[in-house]
Amino acid sequence: MNTLAQFKTIKTLLFDVDGVLTNSHLLILENGALLRQMNTRDGYAIKKAMQEGFEVFIITGGKSEGVLKRLEGLGIPRSNIYAGVQQKIEVWKELQEHFQWNPKEVLYMGDDFPDYEIMQQVGMPCCPSDAIHEIKALCQYISPIKGGEGCARDVIEKVLKLNDKWGDM
Amino acid sequence: MNTLAQFKTIKTLLFDVDGVLTNSHLLILENGALLRQMNTRDGYAIKKAMQEGFEVFIITGGKSEGVLKRLEGLGIPRSNIYAGVQQKIEVWKELQEHFQWNPKEVLYMGDDFPDYEIMQQVGMPCCPSDAIHEIKALCQYISPIKGGEGCARDVIEKVLKLNDKWGDM
Amino acid sequence: MNTLAQFKTIKTLLFDVDGVLTNSHLLILENGALLRQMNTRDGYAIKKAMQEGFEVFIITGGKSEGVLKRLEGLGIPRSNIYAGVQQKIEVWKELQEHFQWNPKEVLYMGDDFPDYEIMQQVGMPCCPSDAIHEIKALCQYISPIKGGEGCARDVIEKVLKLNDKWGDM
Amino acid sequence: MNTLAQFKTIKTLLFDVDGVLTNSHLLILENGALLRQMNTRDGYAIKKAMQEGFEVFIITGGKSEGVLKRLEGLGIPRSNIYAGVQQKIEVWKELQEHFQWNPKEVLYMGDDFPDYEIMQQVGMPCCPSDAIHEIKALCQYISPIKGGEGCARDVIEKVLKLNDKWGDM
Repeated sequence: MNTLAQFKTIKTLLFDVDGVLTNSHLLILENGALLRQMNTRDGYAIKKAMQEGFEVFIITGGKSEGVLKRLEGLGIPRSNIYAGVQQKIEVWKELQEHFQWNPKEVLYMGDDFPDYEIMQQVGMPCCPSDAIHEIKALCQYISPIKGGEGCARDVIEKVLKLNDKWGDM
Repeated sequence: MNTLAQFKTIKTLLFDVDGVLTNSHLLILENGALLRQMNTRDGYAIKKAMQEGFEVFIITGGKSEGVLKRLEGLGIPRSNIYAGVQQKIEVWKELQEHFQWNPKEVLYMGDDFPDYEIMQQVGMPCCPSDAIHEIKALCQYISPIKGGEGCARDVIEKVLKLNDKWGDM
Repeated sequence: MNTLAQFKTIKTLLFDVDGVLTNSHLLILENGALLRQMNTRDGYAIKKAMQEGFEVFIITGGKSEGVLKRLEGLGIPRSNIYAGVQQKIEVWKELQEHFQWNPKEVLYMGDDFPDYEIMQQVGMPCCPSDAIHEIKALCQYISPIKGGEGCARDVIEKVLKLNDKWGDM
Repeated sequence: MNTLAQFKTIKTLLFDVDGVLTNSHLLILENGALLRQMNTRDGYAIKKAMQEGFEVFIITGGKSEGVLKRLEGLGIPRSNIYAGVQQKIEVWKELQEHFQWNPKEVLYMGDDFPDYEIMQQVGMPCCPSDAIHEIKALCQYISPIKGGEGCARDVIEKVLKLNDKWGDM
């Protein structure tokens, strides 16, 4: 099956946060609070995907309150957001058993070490252009776009267009 | 009519906000508040255009209070700012009917999906260098500058210079 | 006199702020407050220049309280900071008359329209790499560095090194 | 001894902050507060290095409370953080005498003037790609990555991989 056919098959989209929906920059306030940087284009695409009936899940080692509020603000149900996760592979097993996902229909976008095992399980592992090389080596698709710069939109747009659901523009 | 002649004809300037007057970055505070990034060069040019008698309007799907304050701070009348717009084409119809604009005299700068229909109506559709390719395909002018990096100044400077109103420098 | 000889002659350093000591990015908070971006390398160099006996002045159209506090924090006397200036050429006339500066000993770094006239007066007009082209056209030296990325350090380092005052590294 | 062999020998990692763990950008709030930018990838690597038994020290001329909180948040003991340091070489002498470090086993990553002397003492002086050229000239290794963009991770990853401690991925 070629890459386009694989994108067309996707029904469920899983995203890591740090380095995927954010870039790797942290702004440090004097009180120690941290600001993260996300992208409006990813936000638009995530909303669009959910409107068109795709399932979106977040699996992240982080637990930034601001990021979680932003993700909920986009309409991702709180129950679809797994934050502060130590072992992502355990979340995968739990979800896969519960929803009986066909791995071929699941896309995961990650960029770093903690994403490695789960990306071996899904049918469509994807990463941003600045993922670590070990992650790149196992991906079906490497986006030309960096983390936090719209890489999630890139894959969502592909899935929706191939299903004639991106819009009639 | 060539591109320079078209720029010279412009009397009214319409701008989208996200991806045009801002880049697509969102900084996320821990309380969920969002910071957007704009550009001092666009601000200077927008003020200059209004001083020289050009009309400036904002038509945006967003409704960030901070951005609206910044735009009002530049001197754009509140009545010229359309925020939280769902269908930009409806705002166009309303404004065009009210002001009896000649489309040839109107420039619109947009970058994404929701700008598509309105950009088919104005005489001079323009976009930043990082607009989506569907938008680029219908533009009379693609700025070499990205959204939030001074792309609005780029088109304003062209319009004013061709009308001998950019300054006597 | 060649460029290096000109740098060696400088005793007084004048800087614009927006686009020189800052880049052109503005971060917009929801309450309308604006954040500007400066550079630690410029800060180090400005302090060093003053320690070594060079005079540093700021002449800016802006009046951001945060930027003024940062500049005072670097040790620039409040009396050397001219903020909210409408006509920079008037400040030049006043200062030049008061201090009887030899224009050949004065460097000014600016990037945009409002800097044009004053840069015609000083002996050593300089600009960052992303200055507007009209400013570039009248500069003795165009730094390879952008505004807010260390362009002030670039010129200060040249002046001090040619006077054997940059350090014995 | 070649560069890889040198990396393998390292037991202790010393880092400057400004320009190494941060980039040189400063965001200025209206009240004069400063925000600095760090990188999540450096954070991950620093934690990993300490878990694997390497010693991490911070030696910085700065004294940003926010940065110190972030570094402590990564698990670096407060007693390993030297902030507000005027003469880094003095801290080196004190630490080296106290711990009886073999300089060959110590890596220091710095980028600027105040790092010069200490970098002449350690066995493995390293710098980010945007260090000043005098620093680059004395480094055993110049990272291809800029300060604040993950240059610390780059060297930590090399040290740990050569010691088979980066993970079994």
